[in-house]
Amino acid sequence: MSSQDAGLPQPVATIDGGFWQRYQVLVRDAVIPYQWKAMNDEIPGAPKSHSVENFRIASGATKGAYEGMVFQDSDLAKWLEAAGNVLGVSRPEEQRELRAHVEEAVDLICRAQQPDGYVNTYFTVKDPAGRWKNLREAHEMYCAGHLIEAGVSLFRGAANRRILDVCCRLADHLEARFGHGPGKVPGYCGHEEIELALVKLARVTGEPRYLRLAQYFVDERGRSPSYFEQESSAPGFTPIFGIKSLPYYQAHQPVRQQKDAVGHAVRAVYLYSAMADLAGESGEAELTAACDRLWESITTRKMYITGGIGASAHLESFGADYDLPNDIAYAETCAAIGLFLFSSRMARLHDQAKYADVMEQTLYNGIISGIGLDGVSYFYVNPLEVVPAVCDANGSYRHVKYRRQPWYGCACCPPNIARTLSSVGEHVYHRRGDTLFADLYHEGTVSLMVGRRPLRLRQSTRYPWEGTVRFQPLDDAEAELTLALRIPGWSRGQELRLNGKPISSKTGGDGYARIRRRWTVSDVLELSLPLTVERVHADPRVRADYGKVALQRGPLVYCLEEADNGASLSQVALAPDARLEAVERPDLLGGIVTVKARGLHGAHGEEGGRADLYTRSSGKPAALAARDLLFIPYFAWANRAAGEMSVWITERGART
Amino acid sequence: MSSQDAGLPQPVATIDGGFWQRYQVLVRDAVIPYQWKAMNDEIPGAPKSHSVENFRIASGATKGAYEGMVFQDSDLAKWLEAAGNVLGVSRPEEQRELRAHVEEAVDLICRAQQPDGYVNTYFTVKDPAGRWKNLREAHEMYCAGHLIEAGVSLFRGAANRRILDVCCRLADHLEARFGHGPGKVPGYCGHEEIELALVKLARVTGEPRYLRLAQYFVDERGRSPSYFEQESSAPGFTPIFGIKSLPYYQAHQPVRQQKDAVGHAVRAVYLYSAMADLAGESGEAELTAACDRLWESITTRKMYITGGIGASAHLESFGADYDLPNDIAYAETCAAIGLFLFSSRMARLHDQAKYADVMEQTLYNGIISGIGLDGVSYFYVNPLEVVPAVCDANGSYRHVKYRRQPWYGCACCPPNIARTLSSVGEHVYHRRGDTLFADLYHEGTVSLMVGRRPLRLRQSTRYPWEGTVRFQPLDDAEAELTLALRIPGWSRGQELRLNGKPISSKTGGDGYARIRRRWTVSDVLELSLPLTVERVHADPRVRADYGKVALQRGPLVYCLEEADNGASLSQVALAPDARLEAVERPDLLGGIVTVKARGLHGAHGEEGGRADLYTRSSGKPAALAARDLLFIPYFAWANRAAGEMSVWITERGART
Repeated sequence: MSSQDAGLPQPVATIDGGFWQRYQVLVRDAVIPYQWKAMNDEIPGAPKSHSVENFRIASGATKGAYEGMVFQDSDLAKWLEAAGNVLGVSRPEEQRELRAHVEEAVDLICRAQQPDGYVNTYFTVKDPAGRWKNLREAHEMYCAGHLIEAGVSLFRGAANRRILDVCCRLADHLEARFGHGPGKVPGYCGHEEIELALVKLARVTGEPRYLRLAQYFVDERGRSPSYFEQESSAPGFTPIFGIKSLPYYQAHQPVRQQKDAVGHAVRAVYLYSAMADLAGESGEAELTAACDRLWESITTRKMYITGGIGASAHLESFGADYDLPNDIAYAETCAAIGLFLFSSRMARLHDQAKYADVMEQTLYNGIISGIGLDGVSYFYVNPLEVVPAVCDANGSYRHVKYRRQPWYGCACCPPNIARTLSSVGEHVYHRRGDTLFADLYHEGTVSLMVGRRPLRLRQSTRYPWEGTVRFQPLDDAEAELTLALRIPGWSRGQELRLNGKPISSKTGGDGYARIRRRWTVSDVLELSLPLTVERVHADPRVRADYGKVALQRGPLVYCLEEADNGASLSQVALAPDARLEAVERPDLLGGIVTVKARGLHGAHGEEGGRADLYTRSSGKPAALAARDLLFIPYFAWANRAAGEMSVWITERGART
Repeated sequence: MSSQDAGLPQPVATIDGGFWQRYQVLVRDAVIPYQWKAMNDEIPGAPKSHSVENFRIASGATKGAYEGMVFQDSDLAKWLEAAGNVLGVSRPEEQRELRAHVEEAVDLICRAQQPDGYVNTYFTVKDPAGRWKNLREAHEMYCAGHLIEAGVSLFRGAANRRILDVCCRLADHLEARFGHGPGKVPGYCGHEEIELALVKLARVTGEPRYLRLAQYFVDERGRSPSYFEQESSAPGFTPIFGIKSLPYYQAHQPVRQQKDAVGHAVRAVYLYSAMADLAGESGEAELTAACDRLWESITTRKMYITGGIGASAHLESFGADYDLPNDIAYAETCAAIGLFLFSSRMARLHDQAKYADVMEQTLYNGIISGIGLDGVSYFYVNPLEVVPAVCDANGSYRHVKYRRQPWYGCACCPPNIARTLSSVGEHVYHRRGDTLFADLYHEGTVSLMVGRRPLRLRQSTRYPWEGTVRFQPLDDAEAELTLALRIPGWSRGQELRLNGKPISSKTGGDGYARIRRRWTVSDVLELSLPLTVERVHADPRVRADYGKVALQRGPLVYCLEEADNGASLSQVALAPDARLEAVERPDLLGGIVTVKARGLHGAHGEEGGRADLYTRSSGKPAALAARDLLFIPYFAWANRAAGEMSVWITERGART
């Protein structure tokens, strides 16, 4: 039995206005062309990618040596996935140049594929004898997984059958090699990704073998004796990164026994995403329970308010529970993306709004913080507090950048953002039976079969700047459909009106307000979410946030930047009862809603004389001076002059 | 002209009671025997030192391969320096075993010395061709410097002429090789130490060549073109650590131009110590001004309240101004020792009490925090906040230990503490002309020539537990002597009595209260420093301490430990007006004064149910529960069960 309607295609929304359209246009017009240049090593001053060049060499089109990280192929694959997404929603006249680039890349990939189906330029060009000998570190299946995701996207978005065939032959090659049984190797990849990719491939091709292979990889992981330990003692094993920790790879115990999210954060959430996919396919209670535990582990103990995860720069890993330092944070963009993907799958597994709440939290904050408003500058690491002088002088902060970067030597994040932003429409709704769950609010249209007839449903909203979301059918429905609207966890006092008349917005406990009806074109369903500026406090066990407050309005987390507030933000304080005023600023940072407040600022040491670093005092708190504060959405930081930034603000003093 | 009375021997106090006697006995009876075993690789379960074994191999006594860090020789040298200090103050019947160990080590060193005077087991045993080819990284002169310091100590403490001769031949070898002029190499060492050692050697031998060589090394450092850059481009250069940054070595500009303390903290303060020595010898204004700037750079912008310096684990370096994180702190024990040495020299250069204030601050806090009460367990890194679970799970904290260690692969700190604790008597007083400056308070006696007759002056005190310090001459003085008593910067309301009658304790601006008199055996001078528990606040630019308070009583900084206060110390708050009560506890941690207070504790998330990591609130601060708090001196932490520790406590709430 399947706990999901696996047979029912999940609805994909178009995006034709509002907040996400801006990103959709940015991806199409700026991100995709820029990243194609980057992958062709044509960005002056940026670290070279070599991604396309490696494929040229592997395909025999040119001679040369492999360059870049061992997983460099995946950058091109993620870009192709984004390209597939863009081609799927753009008009033919917008597609010409992109189609040419895609064809060029697909040609190279086809020609780089080996007769046995293997595709990987590192091992084809640089180390043919090393193939499949270091599953722990070589990222071969990670690259394969991204190629498969690209293939699925290009097939769906551009009807590209050639690349899907490459992917099927690659998957067949994996199936022939890995698993239990005669002649097969009981291995799995050190960087999870192939698992969720094979589920996608199974769904688009209808081929159950790919689903079974994904299930094998998930089931085998962490069994004892450890495949990784056996592999690394075998002759011919060549370490690449030399990381032996099994928890780093989520390979310390079978996945169904895992209780805490540990190790490399991106790997973890990619694995958990596949686990949720497979739990949805099979309905297996034990795997579902593991997904539930791991999702709770992350979201109740290991997640920044921005949805960022993976607190530690050391091995890009989760830290301890409640260990969420703001200034030495890692919070890799890819990890936030992975948590979005995991949460989207959990929403579809359980039909509970709390999962979509986290989708929204990651998407509006810790994911889009990774891309500049220009589309061509990026963050890999997403700190919640930055002091440039400290980053410059103290090597413990060397992973923290305060200027967006044109590219990275390890450039996993930029194309990952591109594919994510271009696929938001896939995550707006999910459906079970005759219920359509609205998980995200956006401007656009979804089309789904109700009975035997399509029903187009338009959603219009200025969300997240305004809280009114209007649903209007563009067709008369043939049958009844329940529309289940997510009431965000942060919402208080929301109102729901059908054709102007108030109706109940009670959610029953799953976080969705349901309206069942045979919809007609004259219906207007309007959800009003009051977007008040909220004070947020962290669990007091989060040391870094103790005694501090963050501001949130709707899904957007806010921050202070030096550009608006001067320096020494750590000395800013906000009284618990300070008035917080939302002010729309169409002129600022592409058009945002700011939050104005009257805050306080701690005095510096004595002016003019020798300031003592430590002073004895009588117990009277230091005098605080009033200061006007302007908060901007966190995602928009670092788009002006370099300077300090802080999300969490000391809470003290009285209203001024 | 010399700005110091270089000709006048600086007085050395005996220590025969009180706080420092405990350490003196500990060093003699526990530390020295244990460390001898450690250097002979006889501590089960501890990392091996190889220090003595390397000398055995280099001396030809045994065959084998060099093991350990490139600077492993320096560990034995520092131990020998401590041994010399101990031999100088212990009774003959206590000396037998130690003398035998010292003789054994000195024998090995004599035999390891090469015909040309060179001593270094790494290059003698492992890489004879590499000698002097990597001054930047090979620590050859650093090891030479420590050997010279050992030689001076053993000569002074045990009249060991053999080791002093080794040192002179080694110094002669250096003089022949380095400097300007025909056949000489214009180099200097990547890890400063030789400079201050040569000053010591010059003073004990009266040989001005050694002073000139020290001056050359200091003057040459940082000149352009860079010796280090030239050296590393030369044929035969083999990198050891591969660190190219010139600021790391304080070699980015000539020392007289340096304004900010930068780079590797230990190297920096060892250099600055030599600079202060040389400024004292020559009276040179420019070098003095550089010392002043660098000391202010550290103590007003880059020093923990414990006197710890070098905030960054990355390259063991200074961070930015006011960048003093408590939990990822490095604050190496050796660096605090170096700041003590630098400050002691500055006190003698300028006769200002602020320098001795920092001597005291480092000694009572960040230095002795590096050694367990048992004398045989150590800290290399001295954090001001520790959460064991975080250190275990987050690799960014991997340098922070919460259990004292039996030894280290890089064991610079343990023997450095041994030599420092056994030499406190050298730093108690300094003299200029007929003024004796009392820089530290302790139980013991100093003897100095006043006119043509010795005057013995006894100091008795229970400092730092009590604030009364009594001075009593044991002889009638032949002439007048000014006794200049340091009034600590933290002191308020101190009283001074001569033979029972109050006299002025005004200091005139240099921080010393002066009493000029022809002292007689019937005189009693009594200084009373009120030891109130003081609240200390950091400059608000110190982000990590903003909104927090630390407690200090006399020179001792206090902390909370989990053993006394339970866990989750980051949630503890202390009201600005909470009553703070000093309570003597002879039963606790070898006998300490604790501080009791009624504090507050932030509530955890909801019990029983799903605790939200982030909660929206109406602006009312979270409820705080009262909690009894017990503070202990920082130096005594981590002598019981492993647990949390915190120096800086959130300051909020009202008295309960």
